[in-house]
Amino acid sequence: MRIAIVGSGALGLYYGALLQRGGADVRFLLRRDFEAVTTRGLKVFSINGDFELPKVKGYRTAVEIGPVDLVLVGLKTFANESFQALIGPLVGEGTHILTLQNGLGNEEALAGLFGAERILGGVAFLCSNRGEPGVVHHLGAGRVVIGEYLPSDHGRVERLAELFGRCGIECRVTDDLKRARWEKLVWNVPFNGLCALLGQTVDRLLCVPASRDLVRELMLETIRGANAQGLSRPIPEGYSENMLEFTDKMGVYRPSMQIDREEGRQLEIAAIFRAPLRFGMEQGIAMPRVEMLATLLEQAVC
Amino acid sequence: MRIAIVGSGALGLYYGALLQRGGADVRFLLRRDFEAVTTRGLKVFSINGDFELPKVKGYRTAVEIGPVDLVLVGLKTFANESFQALIGPLVGEGTHILTLQNGLGNEEALAGLFGAERILGGVAFLCSNRGEPGVVHHLGAGRVVIGEYLPSDHGRVERLAELFGRCGIECRVTDDLKRARWEKLVWNVPFNGLCALLGQTVDRLLCVPASRDLVRELMLETIRGANAQGLSRPIPEGYSENMLEFTDKMGVYRPSMQIDREEGRQLEIAAIFRAPLRFGMEQGIAMPRVEMLATLLEQAVC
Repeated sequence: MRIAIVGSGALGLYYGALLQRGGADVRFLLRRDFEAVTTRGLKVFSINGDFELPKVKGYRTAVEIGPVDLVLVGLKTFANESFQALIGPLVGEGTHILTLQNGLGNEEALAGLFGAERILGGVAFLCSNRGEPGVVHHLGAGRVVIGEYLPSDHGRVERLAELFGRCGIECRVTDDLKRARWEKLVWNVPFNGLCALLGQTVDRLLCVPASRDLVRELMLETIRGANAQGLSRPIPEGYSENMLEFTDKMGVYRPSMQIDREEGRQLEIAAIFRAPLRFGMEQGIAMPRVEMLATLLEQAVC
Repeated sequence: MRIAIVGSGALGLYYGALLQRGGADVRFLLRRDFEAVTTRGLKVFSINGDFELPKVKGYRTAVEIGPVDLVLVGLKTFANESFQALIGPLVGEGTHILTLQNGLGNEEALAGLFGAERILGGVAFLCSNRGEPGVVHHLGAGRVVIGEYLPSDHGRVERLAELFGRCGIECRVTDDLKRARWEKLVWNVPFNGLCALLGQTVDRLLCVPASRDLVRELMLETIRGANAQGLSRPIPEGYSENMLEFTDKMGVYRPSMQIDREEGRQLEIAAIFRAPLRFGMEQGIAMPRVEMLATLLEQAVC
């Protein structure tokens, strides 16, 4: 199976490396890491065991890669305006496109360009960072939940999950991709947003009653937004309490958006905040605290 | 008339200097500026004309000052727990206490300690900064609106306003001190809060539609809180638009709380946010964005 990795950041490099190690014909679209990866290969330092791929197929343009069976999209969402240039040349008759990007709106944008029937989406629970060029650090988790963008024959998503599983990627199939995406937002909205705004790790927010309450309110607003989207079954309000307790156990954790801000990178405010707010508004659900947080983040980095 | 100035910061030094220049027997309770003021007097650099008071009565303790006719309170509100020590020795049989502090809850605290009948309150629209010890800079405005804490004989507040006027302090008397305090909060809550949180001057907030909307929402919540307090007449919603346009004209303005944060001082979150939130809740009015802003500020400085 020929797989193109578009967005070779911490996520793309890590999953791409696992897929190649598992036997797939993986082709990485690279920018920063091109020199290092094409000359010295890829090193993965992982809590599950380090490994090295001495020979890796790296490319500077999608045209050089050409049509593939599967495009795995790991781009930061503010690069979505480059979908056509980065993905178009990879799409042939039978090409599937799987986006593991954050937030909402990614499947819709891909479907608009390449046809809804090609599109699959997934939510990745992965803690990884890029190191020096050609090096990726896998620090925790790594599970993905994938599903069809359109309800359809599930053969291919099951087969894809099987491939991922064989390559050592824990992978579950969901019948309700939208619900999986919103569930992840219940965590991402408060923690990515507040930690990036305040420059504080999750434990700092959780140990003060007022800010712990604010985290909970942001979760509850997100759950209300989610449950107006026609999910197969609603997300219960109690999910917020589960997420708070789950996060208590993470200790001194820096969410990705906090790291992005501290390292001066652009923030995924559109996908993680503005798209959910828009989907909420379309169903008549206001999320005032989520909106305030989005505005404060935009303002803080403008 | 013997007047004690408690809280000899930018506000106390400025009004105290004007009162002394106008002929009152003014006694300053001093900490940082004691040495400078008692040896070299007080210099006022003012947009209305600079002046100098070569001889100024400065004291280190309230006991040395003893009972006075009027106590003018200009303390930062987080020092309110020291009211008894700083003001108690100044209170004789006929002593009046006028607080020009920010936010809500100051008159209540003073009334609890010294008797409600003594208490007057006021709202100062003053832009001033302390310079080196013994120097105060008056940069703009200076108007005060004063009123009785309890509805009562207005003779004394009129006489006080007259004294202030004679000393060059523009002073209006209000029948509804509570309304005057909430009106000022309509400005203070969004601008002090957001500018201190984000480290941005007012113009930065006003030029972006999303953050301008947020400023307006914070104003409208504050107005709703105000109008549940039994004011003599409600604050109209359109007051928010007036305040936005008024602030547009201020240009690159740093509110006092932003300056406090940038200079590492404590912030008046209790008086400007938590007290209004509590008064709102007591009347069944939730102010979710105001509460979120208070929580973010507390979190940002903790």
